[in-house]
Amino acid sequence: MFKINDNYLKLPGSYLFSTIAKKVAAYKEANPEKKDQIISLGIGDVTLPLAPAVIARLHSAVDEMAVKETFKGYAPDLGYEFLRSAIAQHDYKARGVDIAIDEIFISDGAKSDSGNIGDIFSVDNRIAVCDPVYPVYVDTNVMAGRAGDYNPATERFSNVIYMPCTEENGFAPELPEETPDIIYLCFPNNPTGATIPKTELQKWVDYALEKGAVIIYDAAYEAYISEDNVAHTIYECDGADRCAIELRSFSKNAGFTGTRLGFTVIPKALKCGDVTLNSLWARRHGTKFNGAPYIIQQAGAAVYTPEGQAQTQEQIAYYMNNAKIIREGLAAAGFSASGGVNAPYIWLKTPDKMTSWEFFDYLLDKANVVGTPGSGFGPSGEGYFRLTSFGSYENTLEAVERIKKLK
Amino acid sequence: MFKINDNYLKLPGSYLFSTIAKKVAAYKEANPEKKDQIISLGIGDVTLPLAPAVIARLHSAVDEMAVKETFKGYAPDLGYEFLRSAIAQHDYKARGVDIAIDEIFISDGAKSDSGNIGDIFSVDNRIAVCDPVYPVYVDTNVMAGRAGDYNPATERFSNVIYMPCTEENGFAPELPEETPDIIYLCFPNNPTGATIPKTELQKWVDYALEKGAVIIYDAAYEAYISEDNVAHTIYECDGADRCAIELRSFSKNAGFTGTRLGFTVIPKALKCGDVTLNSLWARRHGTKFNGAPYIIQQAGAAVYTPEGQAQTQEQIAYYMNNAKIIREGLAAAGFSASGGVNAPYIWLKTPDKMTSWEFFDYLLDKANVVGTPGSGFGPSGEGYFRLTSFGSYENTLEAVERIKKLK
Repeated sequence: MFKINDNYLKLPGSYLFSTIAKKVAAYKEANPEKKDQIISLGIGDVTLPLAPAVIARLHSAVDEMAVKETFKGYAPDLGYEFLRSAIAQHDYKARGVDIAIDEIFISDGAKSDSGNIGDIFSVDNRIAVCDPVYPVYVDTNVMAGRAGDYNPATERFSNVIYMPCTEENGFAPELPEETPDIIYLCFPNNPTGATIPKTELQKWVDYALEKGAVIIYDAAYEAYISEDNVAHTIYECDGADRCAIELRSFSKNAGFTGTRLGFTVIPKALKCGDVTLNSLWARRHGTKFNGAPYIIQQAGAAVYTPEGQAQTQEQIAYYMNNAKIIREGLAAAGFSASGGVNAPYIWLKTPDKMTSWEFFDYLLDKANVVGTPGSGFGPSGEGYFRLTSFGSYENTLEAVERIKKLK
Repeated sequence: MFKINDNYLKLPGSYLFSTIAKKVAAYKEANPEKKDQIISLGIGDVTLPLAPAVIARLHSAVDEMAVKETFKGYAPDLGYEFLRSAIAQHDYKARGVDIAIDEIFISDGAKSDSGNIGDIFSVDNRIAVCDPVYPVYVDTNVMAGRAGDYNPATERFSNVIYMPCTEENGFAPELPEETPDIIYLCFPNNPTGATIPKTELQKWVDYALEKGAVIIYDAAYEAYISEDNVAHTIYECDGADRCAIELRSFSKNAGFTGTRLGFTVIPKALKCGDVTLNSLWARRHGTKFNGAPYIIQQAGAAVYTPEGQAQTQEQIAYYMNNAKIIREGLAAAGFSASGGVNAPYIWLKTPDKMTSWEFFDYLLDKANVVGTPGSGFGPSGEGYFRLTSFGSYENTLEAVERIKKLK
């Protein structure tokens, strides 16, 4: 008789955003007259259309697929060289970092990569995550059997090292007391919107090298960095090529959430004994994945053209203006809020000691604004709430006005 | 200190098609004058461009992504309903099979799905595979730790049940003597091109139900079926909804090898105790995957329109005409060959007791034709050789003429 992977049964409840969607649907059904007034600043999904340079490239790539002479079948295992070269040049060499093109693996997005990367590690590794955290890091480790058992009282898994990020430490994790084997870091951070200076990131790299740990560095929000002292890639830190894997995405810098493209960098210097993690990931990539679509890889390359860069930077400026409106509006209304400077997320403290979900219901009911409860990202997110700047300018302004009136 | 997944180190050598590519490159370098004469009937990659209906839909979907009002961000977890409905109607209801749309999961292709499906099963399951077999089934189980150790002498893994498919049994696997928990079946078969009648497939379903096994049924070549007694989906068999997962692809029926789209069907009746495999796969899909691109899902839906159907069926007819040329040409030349009737693959017996790789070298050198050594698909493939019908008509004709002259 076949047996299922029992680890799946250890996952508590359903995915955060499904729960939110259900709550909003129930509210709309109970309050049909408010149905059209609801503004979502909840899920981190973009709203601006793809940039003209990307659209033009998609059309030309589609035309190539229509003609025998230029039609493309299976893609090269690691991705097309035209895209990997553009990434190596623009995202690394231009920042003084040497990454070879065979250290770059094109994928269908950072969510897949951050989930699948666990495949190349033994189950017997102890992971450390920030708390609050992007749920995928923890959930995928639970599925793999690496997290231990769930304790509903603490809302924590027995074998995971949690690194609280709260107002007290400026939402920056501290080096853990217990020694982890794999450390997940995400800067600029989802959900808190916080970052740490490059000098602080160097301490994590030094720590990982000292302990023989691997850092899985999620830089999906790199394009939102506005401050000079923040690293755009972990490889700006000395020695990171020997201890870090970097995950990148086109979702937030170019609006590819529904277009799907990302990449993972694994330097060949990163080894376990004689085995490079690069070779293991190459084997996984070649065996369990068959490449991102050719037309989408062309679209990704268009992001790196001068027009693509100018257009996508305009989109980021649009979202960051929304972030400013939210941040300043919340401050004016007397909320304690952070983030929104190097990231599209604003992290606010709930008023009157409300729980995150109480504030969710309150905001939905009183202002018809949807956000994301901080507790959904981990126990240390309790009492916090995430708003995103991915809405339209008009909706963002309106949502902030409504929130101001609550006070 | 972090630990890698040691199971990866048990994988022998590199992926079959990488080895072939290297051999061909070396031959071209040593024989530069023959460089342009080489015809590949090796890898199962299509060569005809995407159908006009698919191209038109890709363009219109790209245009939707260019405008705020029709732009699409994150897709629904399981895939867009427009595509799942078309699949449920065309691939199942039209064949008298009831599959609900929430039993269909859209993905980026059957290779990913056939690799990832192992995630929802315990490591403690015994798998059974045909021999020869599509290498992904075995390799991904090795990576998961389910295959045991590799024995170079037998070229087999200690914990895998192999079901030989040879001339003696008409390339149809027999029910295994040892009891498996998970059975991989692929009909029409890659690499042999063989099928079994629906009445024989029913025996496998009955066997799985009796033993409490799951069948992972790869129907990627379904569109090539020409004989009436062959099932187009395993759910044509009674009880298959309680024991079978079906994998499907747009790669071979619509030329999506470089466009990437597939789907997996898991009926809700398929359970382990109270747990439906559908719910486990939904959780995996929602946690480790973020949907296929919107524009690609639209392209998939275009395949199901009357124009899309007519155009893709024309492509299949083109490839199957190639298959006929190869099959009949080989027979005329005195080869023993099968397949090519319900599948785009021809499976031939090497002459003069050559090994598969000897014949590969012989064919490359004497006829400048590239095929795939049968032994690359498993020890029972030794002494066989695969040719595909995915080349152009002209190349196929030329390749067959050259092979005829060898005799």
